This record gives sequence, C-alpha cells and structure tokens, in this order.
Amino acid sequence: MFDPVAAIQEFIRHPSVSTDPSYQEGMSGARDYIAGLLRDMGLKVDILETPLHPVVLAHREGPADWPHVIIYGHYDVQPADPFELWNTPPFAPEIRDGRLYGRGAADNKGPLMVHVAAVARLLEQQPDLPLRITFLIEGEEEIGSPSFPQILRDYKDRLQADFVLLTDTLSPSTEQIAITTALRGIVTLEVELTGPSSDLHSGIHGGAIMNPIVALSRLCATLHHEDGSVNVPGFYDDVVETHAWEKEEIARLSSDQEAYQQRLGVNDFYTAKGVPPAEATRLWPTLEFNGIGGGYQGEGSKTIIPSKAFVKISCRLVANQTADDIAAKVTQALEDRCPPQVKLKITRGHNGNPYRVVPPHRPDTPEDQDPSLARAFDGADAAIREIFPHPPLYLREGGSVPIIGDLKRVLGLDSLMFGMFTPVDNLHAPNESFDLQMFERGIGVSERILRAVAEKR
Amino acid sequence: MFDPVAAIQEFIRHPSVSTDPSYQEGMSGARDYIAGLLRDMGLKVDILETPLHPVVLAHREGPADWPHVIIYGHYDVQPADPFELWNTPPFAPEIRDGRLYGRGAADNKGPLMVHVAAVARLLEQQPDLPLRITFLIEGEEEIGSPSFPQILRDYKDRLQADFVLLTDTLSPSTEQIAITTALRGIVTLEVELTGPSSDLHSGIHGGAIMNPIVALSRLCATLHHEDGSVNVPGFYDDVVETHAWEKEEIARLSSDQEAYQQRLGVNDFYTAKGVPPAEATRLWPTLEFNGIGGGYQGEGSKTIIPSKAFVKISCRLVANQTADDIAAKVTQALEDRCPPQVKLKITRGHNGNPYRVVPPHRPDTPEDQDPSLARAFDGADAAIREIFPHPPLYLREGGSVPIIGDLKRVLGLDSLMFGMFTPVDNLHAPNESFDLQMFERGIGVSERILRAVAEKR
Repeated sequence: MFDPVAAIQEFIRHPSVSTDPSYQEGMSGARDYIAGLLRDMGLKVDILETPLHPVVLAHREGPADWPHVIIYGHYDVQPADPFELWNTPPFAPEIRDGRLYGRGAADNKGPLMVHVAAVARLLEQQPDLPLRITFLIEGEEEIGSPSFPQILRDYKDRLQADFVLLTDTLSPSTEQIAITTALRGIVTLEVELTGPSSDLHSGIHGGAIMNPIVALSRLCATLHHEDGSVNVPGFYDDVVETHAWEKEEIARLSSDQEAYQQRLGVNDFYTAKGVPPAEATRLWPTLEFNGIGGGYQGEGSKTIIPSKAFVKISCRLVANQTADDIAAKVTQALEDRCPPQVKLKITRGHNGNPYRVVPPHRPDTPEDQDPSLARAFDGADAAIREIFPHPPLYLREGGSVPIIGDLKRVLGLDSLMFGMFTPVDNLHAPNESFDLQMFERGIGVSERILRAVAEKR
Repeated sequence: MFDPVAAIQEFIRHPSVSTDPSYQEGMSGARDYIAGLLRDMGLKVDILETPLHPVVLAHREGPADWPHVIIYGHYDVQPADPFELWNTPPFAPEIRDGRLYGRGAADNKGPLMVHVAAVARLLEQQPDLPLRITFLIEGEEEIGSPSFPQILRDYKDRLQADFVLLTDTLSPSTEQIAITTALRGIVTLEVELTGPSSDLHSGIHGGAIMNPIVALSRLCATLHHEDGSVNVPGFYDDVVETHAWEKEEIARLSSDQEAYQQRLGVNDFYTAKGVPPAEATRLWPTLEFNGIGGGYQGEGSKTIIPSKAFVKISCRLVANQTADDIAAKVTQALEDRCPPQVKLKITRGHNGNPYRVVPPHRPDTPEDQDPSLARAFDGADAAIREIFPHPPLYLREGGSVPIIGDLKRVLGLDSLMFGMFTPVDNLHAPNESFDLQMFERGIGVSERILRAVAEKR
C-alpha cells in the first residue's frame, strides 16, 4: 500500500542539489526513486537524458479522445547551506507538530507527491478513468531548467495535451489556498570587477589605486533609486497594467502586514515607490543582489586591496517583460556606469520569461481558452471551497517557475497552479518544512481536478 | 657555523599565522626556533607569556654605560590563502634565481634574520663589543600587536634603551635603500548589516524589503568622494603638513609610474584628489575595504535575499591622526548614513597610531635627539652609501608597524628603520619572496650601525 508521507520522506533522503556537482548521487537517487513510484502505479516511465540532469517522463496512455493532463514537478532542490542553521539535518526528514522538515519538503518534493498520491488513489478507485496523464519531472528547476526547452521540442509529440497541472507555488496559509495566475520571470547575472592583478598590501599601495570593492559598491548603489525602484533605463517599460479583478483578489488577501514584518524579522518594509508589500512582490519586477564577495572574509583581518570583487544579481520579471530585454538593459547600465579603473566581466546565468494566465469567467478571459483547462479551473475552485476553510484566491505570484513560460511558448500549453506551500515553510532557507494536513487536503483537490477533467469530456 | 639563509628557510617552515587559531603549532615552532638561535649566540632568552602569542625577549647584557639598542622583529606571518595561486607551497621555502620564496620570507622572517646574522658576526669578530643588545620579537604584528603595549609596560625596566633598530619597512629596489622616517597608523572596523532574520526566497519576498547588500553598497559608496578622497567629516583634520626635505626625497625616488602601474596590473591610478601615487601612499591617509561578503557565493546561483552582509574596513593614518579619533569619526559616519531598514553592527579591530621621526641634520631635527640614535642614523647612511649602489632615501612609508608608535608612547624610544623588502616581494600576497643579495648587504649595514653606536660612545 502506497504511504504518501513515507514517500516524501524517502524522496528527501536523496540529497538532490542540482547546482552542485558533488551531489550527483543524490540526484540519481531522487530520480530513480520517483521513477520507481510511477512505474509501480502502472505508468510507462522513461528517463530522458539531457546535457545535465535527466528528466523523468511517465505516461498513463489512452485513446486520443481522452483528455490529456500533464503534471509537472521537479526532483531537484536548493543547496542546504548554511547547514549549521538547521535544527535537524536537511536530508534526514523529521516530522514535528504535523510538519515534515527537510530540504525539498515544500519545494517541490512534498507538493509533487500530492499529485502522485492523487493519481494513485484515483486509479485504484477507478481503474478505467478516461484520462490520459503524463508526469513530466525535471531535475534542473533550481538552476533555471536549461535543458527543459529542448526536451519539450524533442518530445513534442508525446506532450500534446490540454493543459499542465502543477503545485510549485505559494498559498497565503494552510487554510487559504491560492490559485496562481502569474509567475515572475527571472534573469541572473554575475558581475566581476578586477582591479590589480593580485591582492595588494593596503599599506604599501593603499591610496594609489581604485579598490574593486569601492568600484563594486558604487556600481551596485547606482542600480536602485532612493525610493526603492530599479534605476536601469527602460526597466519598467513593458510591465503590464494590473487588471481590476487582480487588485481585488490581492485586496481579499488577508494582509496582516505586522505579522509578515515580524516573520521576516525586519525593521520595516522597503518597496519600490512605497507600494504595499503584497503588490510589490506580485505585480512588480525587482533587481536583487543574491550574494557579494571579494577580498579577505576570514577570521581577523588581512589588510589587502583585493584583486577582485563580485556580485550575483537576479531580476524577477513580470508580464510582459522578457529575460533577454532586461538582461540587455541591466548589462548596458553596468557597462555605462562601471568605473574605468577596473575591468568588468558580466556572465549571464539562468533565465525564464514571466507567465500569466486568466482563469475562466473573468472579463479578460480569452475566448479560445481550452475547455479542459476551464473545467480544471472550475473543478479546483469547487474542490478548494469544499475541502479548505476558505474559497481560493486567484493571485499573481512572486516566484519563478521558468518552465511554465517554456510550456506555453513551445507547446502552447497553459497551466493550472494551486499553491501547496506557505510563507512559513522556509523555502530556499534553513529548516524548510511542509504542512502534512495541507498535503492530505491537496491530494483531495488534485483528485477532484483530474476527475472533473475526465468526467465532463 | 650559523648559516643565515638556511636559518630563514627553517624559520619559514614553521607556519606562524597569528590570525588563525589552527596555526598554533606553527606559531610555537617559529617562536622556539628563533629563541633557540638567540640562545645559541649566547643571549639570555625569555619567553614572555601574553593573552595570545608569547613574546621572545633576549638580552646581551653589559655595563649601564654601554649604549643599549633594541632590535625589533616579529615571528608571525600573514595568512597564505589563496593557496592555489602559489607556484610552490608557502611554507616549503624554495630558492629560485637568487630569491627565497615562502610566506614570511620578506615580512618579517628574512629582514629579522638580517639583524640576527649581524649580531652573530659582530660578536664572533668582537666578543667584547661595548654594546647592550636586546631582541624584542613578537608574534602578533600581523594582527595589530594587541599584547605589545602591556609587555612594554610590564618589562619597562629591561627596555630602557637608546633607540630601536628594525627592518620591517620597504625600499624602492634592491639597489636603492630607504631609511623610513614615518609609518602610517591603522585602524580596522568590521561592519555587519542585518536585514531579515534569515535568508529569504527572492521570488516570494523580493520587492518587499531592503536587501542588506543594497544597504551595504550604499553605505560603502558614501565613504569616498568621486575624486577618491575619503568622505568622512573631519577625516583630514589632523594630517601634518609635509616638510620640504620630505618632498625632495620623494622627488628623488625614481618614479617610473608606468612600470609601477604595470606591476600592479591596473588600468590607471586612482588617488585622493589626483596627487601622485608615490605621495598618495606615503603622505595621505586612506580608507580601504579589505573584504566584503554576504549571501550566496558558491557555484551557480541561489536566489535569496541574504540576511546579512559585511565589509572589513581599514584606514591607514598619517601623523598626527590618531586611531581612536578616526575610528570614532568613521563609526559616526556609518551610523549617520546606515539605511534605517537594516541593523548595523560595528566591531573595532586592531589599531596603531602613526609614527614619524626626523633624522639628524635636518632643519626640523629636534634639539634633544638621542645621540646614539643620531650616530646610528649616520652609521646607516655611511654604510648604505658604501655597500649599496645608491645613497639612502629618507622616506615616509605607507605601511604600518603599530608597535613603533607604542615604543615611542610607552618607552619614549625612537626607531631607526631601513627597508629590506621591495615592491616586487609580494608582501601579504601569494608568492612572497626575499632577495638574497639584499639580505647579505643588509647584514653588512646592520653590523656597521651597531658598531657605530658602540664605538663612538
């Protein structure tokens, strides 16, 4: 008998950190584990090789007139460092007070297991369910899914479907589920400045040359206006105007700002031009520094002028910005502003375009919306109203799942996303966790969605 | 028979990194080695305990009417990282083309050995030399000599002397020796900014709060004016005016700026208000960033808003600035300018006041200058003219030897310093080395100085 909670735990035990080559064994372990689960459920499983981490593709096949749902997920996780801030080891999952702790518990191993469990139950109850189901599970989500677009192109025939179902998005709380109507895009750049050809004694040479940390600070300081908005020419040019119903949904979002501030542990919010935090993280793009480094960082002091300093930048994008355009604009600003005494090197990292979908029955719903997608949205709405204490909120979200844009661009598929993790789950941070009641309820919602799509054809 | 070159090599083999507690064994090894050498020469050696690294104190005693010279040196070295940039391991000394490579070769193990060898030869040739000699060798120079002032106070009686002799300063080249007439002081501060209480997902929360790297960049960028000068109120208030003879000596300094620029590997110089580099590094104070860090610095990307970011600052001071005053002024500027959305923590590190001595026969030589010091200066001048291709230059120097200020303040002692390392020696950097012809010539100069002080009493 399939035990979904035990399955998440086993899944987490494989440390599948995609960004770090030393975790190869964890990657293959996680991949083989999820492939085995799907195989045991009777699905036809293929492991698709890529230049980096293989993709798991699993089909429940059926007649061409059955609707076809693709369920997306990823088996890779963020790095777990700093390890010393975890209360229990990140890859030794532990349940405490109804929560499962471990790296990947909420992003995305727990939420992916929602659908695995839902399909398992559904097929057990109704082995002849008239629905084609494809699991598409990649191992490069946390590094920007570089191999994914090519996989979509190579397996286009097997991925002709009605829509994509996934839960890799955020809900406000375990009682209040969000259906995600947009994801921010992302583009990352690493900026390295080189001053002297090697570290120099700051006594002997100090005063003669531009310190690359001086140059880097100045350069970074130019990238935001005092009011918090991004100071890159044309950065906001393509930002869509927000629709009325979207603003209403955000207004419905219980916005206990004080609690949010406390949870983040900050003195104050700081948003572009002072917009409310809930809008700043959902409706507006950002330019963030994810890391900075240069010179001596060890214990004590080392009085050098460093040779190099670097900063890692990521921009979150909203519709209808594009990664290429924003990368070009930020690069241009950096080149224009870099002090001439240092050498500038910019390396572009992973990226993904933003995505936006309009649910059925909205003033701006496209007329040609796929009927299975519309039924799925309706099924999700009804199920959430029944299973959870509150009706769903339809929210644009701040995070990025770049492949959602790829699925739209390459295969023309829209996505139905309902959120299974919440702000207290510590995604990408120490002590990541996942609520197990949320998990059980989520399985119910997934079942109802799949049934709605199958039954009403 | 004492082999001075072999002695430096053995000295270097003890990795005496004072800033890093994991090098305790290297510290005690280096200390015991130098103490043993001095003991073998017939000196009375004591190891003085301190809260951190003990001091080696060794006396050649004699009647009270013999002049008394203190020879200062340090047995600790800078950290050797980044190790991968060394052509040969930093603690496995190797001679190539007349140069000895290894961490500490030039700072200060080789130059200290100049005096050990000079005293050894002198006492061998003239066992009844009427001169009291004290070696005072500490193990905390590279971390700011925190225990040194207390040692001076505790052993004041044994340290009543005429002047201090040392070579821990820079000469322009192996052919052109500098007698150092000033050292810059130093004060170090570590600045840590804390934003959110833990690292945050930059998608979910990005846009809502002040990123501590944004705050740090802004803060750092305020600390210099565009013209390169330090932007801290009152920073330059106490800078002494340069004397005419000092400017002339700097003018005599062969100033092949293009070669200097090439050696540093920079596009251009960048000095406060555009003064010449040779003056900027000798006559003016600085505020440098020695290291910066925060957030994710590993391979690939991790899209977080970091909880913390820090910068290590050091200021080089000139007469008559004081470490306390400058620390207070920089601290005040940081506090005044820190964005209110982040928490600021400033930790003061090691410091030392600047030092300046005027040689004999100058218009501004103090009338009450110690006659032994004057004879020592004259002896050094004559010896350098005879042994080296060029007469000495009398130069203020950019580096800091904070204890020189302590010796003046606590014991009233001035110092005669002649430079034994040169700009190509890579101090505090990978592939540090020391010229062995310079070493042999330096031994001759030290011998002549000691003889001049002894003979002319």
